[in-house]
Amino acid sequence: MTDDFQGWERRDKPPTLFRRFAFAQYAQTRAFLDALSALSEEIQRHPQNINFGTTYVNITIGAADDTALSAEDEQFAGRIAALAERGE
Amino acid sequence: MTDDFQGWERRDKPPTLFRRFAFAQYAQTRAFLDALSALSEEIQRHPQNINFGTTYVNITIGAADDTALSAEDEQFAGRIAALAERGE
Repeated sequence: MTDDFQGWERRDKPPTLFRRFAFAQYAQTRAFLDALSALSEEIQRHPQNINFGTTYVNITIGAADDTALSAEDEQFAGRIAALAERGE
Repeated sequence: MTDDFQGWERRDKPPTLFRRFAFAQYAQTRAFLDALSALSEEIQRHPQNINFGTTYVNITIGAADDTALSAEDEQFAGRIAALAERGE
């Protein structure tokens, strides 16, 4: 297993996946956040934390079972990244 | 002048206004974020940083002139706080 997962940084204590997404303009940042909100609504799951400014969004995903990262968490991370690829 | 401005904490280097808003449920957090996004669109001004999880939103407002906080910044802070009062 590599340290990172498709651009996401694995962090410990508690286990999380972290990634920073950068955008050229606020409109793209906004579109990404809106798409992320729609995805969260759809699958009823939210990142643990979202930290954003006009041209960046930092996302932290916690473990779904609160104990260890699983394939389910990686799938969630992958779906979020796919949303960003539309806007970057 | 008091240290704080209507629930906002004044911070220095660089000068910012910071406030944490807490909500009982994600739906309220989401409603507040959506209202904030609409306000930002309307007045063409965004907080420097927004940091949120399912039941909280931390907001940092930078100085509009990048140098010192002004009445304009306090007005922006006041309008944001008014949005939260609808949802809290």
